[in-house]
Amino acid sequence: MSISFSLVSEDSNARLGKIITKRGIINTPAFMPVGTAATVKALTVDQVNQTGSEVILCNTYHLFLRPGVERIERVGGLHKFMNYNKPILTDSGGFQVMSLSKNTKITEEGATFNSHIDGKKIFISPEISIDIQKKLNADIIMVFDECPEYSKDKKRIEDSMNLSLRWAKRSKDEFGLNKDKYLFGIVQGGIFKDLRKICLMELQDIDFNGYALGGLAVGEPQYEMFETVEEISVLMPKNKPRYLMGTGTPGDLLGAVKRGIDMFDCVLPTRTGRTGLAFTWDGKINLRNAQYAKDDSPIDIRVNCPASQLYSKNYINHLFNCNEILASTLLTWHNIAFYQDLMSKIRQSISEFKFQEFFNQHFERLNN
Amino acid sequence: MSISFSLVSEDSNARLGKIITKRGIINTPAFMPVGTAATVKALTVDQVNQTGSEVILCNTYHLFLRPGVERIERVGGLHKFMNYNKPILTDSGGFQVMSLSKNTKITEEGATFNSHIDGKKIFISPEISIDIQKKLNADIIMVFDECPEYSKDKKRIEDSMNLSLRWAKRSKDEFGLNKDKYLFGIVQGGIFKDLRKICLMELQDIDFNGYALGGLAVGEPQYEMFETVEEISVLMPKNKPRYLMGTGTPGDLLGAVKRGIDMFDCVLPTRTGRTGLAFTWDGKINLRNAQYAKDDSPIDIRVNCPASQLYSKNYINHLFNCNEILASTLLTWHNIAFYQDLMSKIRQSISEFKFQEFFNQHFERLNN
Repeated sequence: MSISFSLVSEDSNARLGKIITKRGIINTPAFMPVGTAATVKALTVDQVNQTGSEVILCNTYHLFLRPGVERIERVGGLHKFMNYNKPILTDSGGFQVMSLSKNTKITEEGATFNSHIDGKKIFISPEISIDIQKKLNADIIMVFDECPEYSKDKKRIEDSMNLSLRWAKRSKDEFGLNKDKYLFGIVQGGIFKDLRKICLMELQDIDFNGYALGGLAVGEPQYEMFETVEEISVLMPKNKPRYLMGTGTPGDLLGAVKRGIDMFDCVLPTRTGRTGLAFTWDGKINLRNAQYAKDDSPIDIRVNCPASQLYSKNYINHLFNCNEILASTLLTWHNIAFYQDLMSKIRQSISEFKFQEFFNQHFERLNN
Repeated sequence: MSISFSLVSEDSNARLGKIITKRGIINTPAFMPVGTAATVKALTVDQVNQTGSEVILCNTYHLFLRPGVERIERVGGLHKFMNYNKPILTDSGGFQVMSLSKNTKITEEGATFNSHIDGKKIFISPEISIDIQKKLNADIIMVFDECPEYSKDKKRIEDSMNLSLRWAKRSKDEFGLNKDKYLFGIVQGGIFKDLRKICLMELQDIDFNGYALGGLAVGEPQYEMFETVEEISVLMPKNKPRYLMGTGTPGDLLGAVKRGIDMFDCVLPTRTGRTGLAFTWDGKINLRNAQYAKDDSPIDIRVNCPASQLYSKNYINHLFNCNEILASTLLTWHNIAFYQDLMSKIRQSISEFKFQEFFNQHFERLNN
């Protein structure tokens, strides 16, 4: 069965779609929980599935370093390795080469760097990244790109973007023909919208199955990110998925869906869940705060998840005070369930052509 | 509905029984997972229930210190606080006063000590311990006893035992009439069997709903523990549950069931699960060992638990290498499921009058 995308309906710029894969349907707009090292941190696969998540993201860079490709390829790929049967998207490693590795040296050929774990010297090229992702047997694969740090030096960003475009072409060649996998191109160009437009056009010439916006949500004000998304996403082909990488807060998701984005991933609900932060329909709360010792209500009864409904804030506050693992599990579980509840209601509102109403009703509270 | 015990059948000294409570039946011999701070570490309540556990143990000392009784009593007790609907046994705190607290001073009245968490000065008497346990709303409550450290000084042990007996009487008085709760006495007496026999007789004069052996499994050789269990358990009333506290390894459980014990608790399957140790029907294995990177088989297919059957040793080894929380969850889950599988098969063998055969078949391998 080959992978396909269909645009179901549009409500102004907001889009309702389906990515149909042999491992299940991904209803878009979709949020992908992050499973960096082949586990959504603190959750079993059953718990992830119970949140309504239909796809997760894993990291090529992390898995390449640990446990290495061989141990995953040997069992037939990531799905079997981690006992997860739904679609998986793998990031190419480009972002981690920039953000995590040491002594990184970029050449035309690829990136040489020292592992952030043991300092070991590593080389990744577009060909190596795509080869790894194919061996991981991911359903959606990302091109290997250079992710420059935030810069106002246009020449630097343009050079980097052009290198990423040449790497995108090499990624496509290495990807070859794969009817049951998607390969996505990544639009770079930093804060320069003209560069991003050129980048998108050149990527479309190479022709990918979907297009991602990279290098956003890296600390710029939200309105700047929205501006960039707004200008670029409407230029993306309508019949292919649009993915805003590494984003974001519930407010970011609402604002980006409004501007035509279909897919998101972010460590926020998982990472903050481990520190005590809960996302709710009333906004964020930190369950470590002493006030919750006196609060016997559940985190958010409106979210259809055992962690959201069956455990009191009082209890979870106690678990965090005792550094109990269950605290991280329950709050991660709830946060992802909340994100999926948000996405589900976003999709519902688009299907009823009421997205703007839904946006107006929730944006301010959720964007706090 | 009042709580009751019925002895279903006997196979030599091994016993099959049922503790019937308003929250469910505890089939004995039973293993109680430890939920020190109102959570079986690293597991949700659903996961605990899936292992076949029918009762858990929580700690009065820990809960008294953190979160304090008020936050639990306010919601109606431990079951509601931690969202666990099956029976709960609470330890009285006597053992933790000895093993965890600082500057402990024992008087006739009770134990004064400094909290191991924040150094705060705390006083616990038999009356306070039983009052807390009633407020926690535990189904089975333990008398507050003095737990002397291992000693060959018979006078010291005898004095301590006599103090514990006076405390046992005060515990009984404070317990009062509770048709839906059990109060268990604890046999002390250290390594001196004559003292233990006296202690048991005196406890029987006070009259408890069940009798526990305390102060064993504290580092003595296994055969010594078995000898003590053998001499004392057969003197315990047949129509009441017999509980060997803080034990043990799978081999300990087999040997103690053979000598007439009905109930066990131990941190071993949970604590070791967090460090990489798995109990299996073939004996113990440490999944941190590099050899398991090459082993794509599940931990133990014979144990009916997702953690035992659906994840490979290769994967779990990877999770431990990355310090992933899921490693602790999966291995704790498997270990408790293995313990419950062992208890279930022990009960089955007793019901078929084949316990000795079962013992002979498994003791050596499981006692490694």
